[in-house]
Amino acid sequence: MEKQSIKVGLLGLGTVGAGVMKILKMNEEQITRRAGMPVEVKKILVRSLEKERPIKVDASLLTTDPEDILQDPEIDVVVEVMGGVEQTRRYIEKALQNKKFVITANKDLMATAGSELLLLAREHGRNIYYEASVGGGIPLVRPLKHSLGANRIWRIMGIINGTTNYILTQMNLQDMDFEEALKEAQLKGFAEPDPSNDLEGLDAAYKLCILAGLSFNSRVRIDDLHIEGINSVDRRDIFYARELGFSIKLLAIGEELDEGVALRVHPTLIPTTHPLAGVFFENNALYVVGDAVGEVMFFGPGAGAMPTGSSVIADLIEVARNLSHHVENGIMEMDFQEKAILPMEELSSAFYLRLHAKDQPGVFASLATAFGDEKVSLDMIIQKRSDEGLAEIVLVTHAVEEKYFNRALGRIQRFPTIKEINSVFRVIEN
Amino acid sequence: MEKQSIKVGLLGLGTVGAGVMKILKMNEEQITRRAGMPVEVKKILVRSLEKERPIKVDASLLTTDPEDILQDPEIDVVVEVMGGVEQTRRYIEKALQNKKFVITANKDLMATAGSELLLLAREHGRNIYYEASVGGGIPLVRPLKHSLGANRIWRIMGIINGTTNYILTQMNLQDMDFEEALKEAQLKGFAEPDPSNDLEGLDAAYKLCILAGLSFNSRVRIDDLHIEGINSVDRRDIFYARELGFSIKLLAIGEELDEGVALRVHPTLIPTTHPLAGVFFENNALYVVGDAVGEVMFFGPGAGAMPTGSSVIADLIEVARNLSHHVENGIMEMDFQEKAILPMEELSSAFYLRLHAKDQPGVFASLATAFGDEKVSLDMIIQKRSDEGLAEIVLVTHAVEEKYFNRALGRIQRFPTIKEINSVFRVIEN
Repeated sequence: MEKQSIKVGLLGLGTVGAGVMKILKMNEEQITRRAGMPVEVKKILVRSLEKERPIKVDASLLTTDPEDILQDPEIDVVVEVMGGVEQTRRYIEKALQNKKFVITANKDLMATAGSELLLLAREHGRNIYYEASVGGGIPLVRPLKHSLGANRIWRIMGIINGTTNYILTQMNLQDMDFEEALKEAQLKGFAEPDPSNDLEGLDAAYKLCILAGLSFNSRVRIDDLHIEGINSVDRRDIFYARELGFSIKLLAIGEELDEGVALRVHPTLIPTTHPLAGVFFENNALYVVGDAVGEVMFFGPGAGAMPTGSSVIADLIEVARNLSHHVENGIMEMDFQEKAILPMEELSSAFYLRLHAKDQPGVFASLATAFGDEKVSLDMIIQKRSDEGLAEIVLVTHAVEEKYFNRALGRIQRFPTIKEINSVFRVIEN
Repeated sequence: MEKQSIKVGLLGLGTVGAGVMKILKMNEEQITRRAGMPVEVKKILVRSLEKERPIKVDASLLTTDPEDILQDPEIDVVVEVMGGVEQTRRYIEKALQNKKFVITANKDLMATAGSELLLLAREHGRNIYYEASVGGGIPLVRPLKHSLGANRIWRIMGIINGTTNYILTQMNLQDMDFEEALKEAQLKGFAEPDPSNDLEGLDAAYKLCILAGLSFNSRVRIDDLHIEGINSVDRRDIFYARELGFSIKLLAIGEELDEGVALRVHPTLIPTTHPLAGVFFENNALYVVGDAVGEVMFFGPGAGAMPTGSSVIADLIEVARNLSHHVENGIMEMDFQEKAILPMEELSSAFYLRLHAKDQPGVFASLATAFGDEKVSLDMIIQKRSDEGLAEIVLVTHAVEEKYFNRALGRIQRFPTIKEINSVFRVIEN
């Protein structure tokens, strides 16, 4: 028998849930045509029936009892847009056990329990769709799985946190300092009142877990990541970077090397002609290097009700098409291999270093000797006169194993002529 | 009975064909896993059995008789990478009639006969996959159809010709003039010995036909397009654009407005913070505005054997997955509506204008009056001293219906004080 419609149970009716409802109504005719059948939201789980909501919804759809959705045999697919981890996970597990497809916009859940949930889905002959859990409206999950399916992916580099990218953009384009740019971001709603998760790189790290799992077909845990935030980026670093032909971006980087996988989030200098350097303001982008395609990039809004709703509904359309073709779990190409995680020490990076030294003869020579002794060679140098008999020195090294750079840096820090090490960032040329 | 493998007939073994064969071998294990079965190339149509080829292929696979592929009932899918239009079209029609899936990398064919071929495919319960026909390795067709399926698309803007983007990039970053940049592009293999199809915007126009058909669900013909090339872009324009905060790019633009569809290829000034401004060298990108997602962009290599092969194999994986799920033609959401094509005269654009005028009192006033009389208001003005008693004047207008601008320009051209109109380009702010 042909299905007459796809029936949806919605968990949550906050910002994203409202976006989903709005788009379903706005583009109903087109979505029906693409899905091959009407999409019907049958029940919506909310915390309270009385609350004011951003959109009008038929009151008979609302329920405060999750079982009304999880146990309803008519519901084909559970769309989870409520957030949270522990309770939400139990709901999703139950939905899968009850043979429902699951669509989720939940970054934290997919980052911490994604591989287990996907395995559970496979056991039950169903699937979890999570395009909306990372990158907001940007198509990332589907392109990585399908469009780049012929490729082994060597490296991904993402600007996947809008708050930090907005701040770095304003520091660069408007010559703001960090505090000023943060305040503006908060004023415009691009940064939360407590922005520490964003500024310290944690939000980007969770997203990297999801994207790296998908790209390298491996199980990635947040503890595997090296994480640095942007608090250490000074306006002067942005200025010097620009003078040397670079932009500073907070990048989430995943690489698969012969010996294992390397995963990290840190401020990075990239050439101004790199496509990631053209990603300004609150926008996000993922840059992907594959062995067949070369370099591709996906750009767009990394958050927001309507963009995230757009991704949720793309997943809904796919579920509907699978249902009408009697495909149960589609292709489950993830097999969650455990791969070695490479320590930062063993990675090769070029470094940018800004420091203040006493402006006296022999200072630069001693710096150069310390680097030379550790086989760190210098690529670019700027020295400027500073206040009070100090010189401000900016160095960019050639790529070198991190442990050698760290050793040289340790030596330099002990020089009595070095007044202060201001900044150390990695540099990626391509 | 489960299928044991997907059997492919390859039409052509030139650059792209060799790329396909190379990737199939290089990533065989992964492609088999994703396709759900091995991909077996059973026959390859070539013009001559004796020719030297870029890759080694088992001689028993080669044939010069297309019927060996088109009539072979074992062959599931015909992959067309031979190019050309008339003969190739007949082969593809025959393949569809014989119930084969078709994958094509043929831009000219899809631009001129795509909608007819897709209809024919539907009649025979099959489908044509054409990710590789536009944008090389960049995922465009699949994201437009699937990932953005919840959106009505309002506008697409593409840098979809690598030759012209390389030339404009070198003029911008290296201060080259047009001839010099063209020569370098030819030397590096980014421009053909006869580059006129690229320089005049025709190549971009064909690609826009395919992308606009897909985005606006409409039938688009090359004659519907307004086409301008980059021969008119002078180094001085690049310089002034930069001074005003713009980059000049050759954009292929499609828009759906209330009254119809507008389609054009022309050099365009865009703000340097626009994501398309960060697309340098021979790279391509498509910027898409949808009503739910907002603005997204897809970036990558627009040509080349391996990138294009990557797209062909993504399509092959999809065909294999459909075969194993007994899906015949998938979703054919194109229904090729005939939509009104808007004439350029009725579009609204901001304009950049560079001209030389006699350096004498009242000249600028007369210019300003001519614009004011036609209700064209000015946004930015630069006037510089030039040689021989001339002034070089650069103006950027606010957006205005093109016919009013053209009327003002017509008047100005007749002023005796105007020595020469050097350049007229459109400006897009967002």
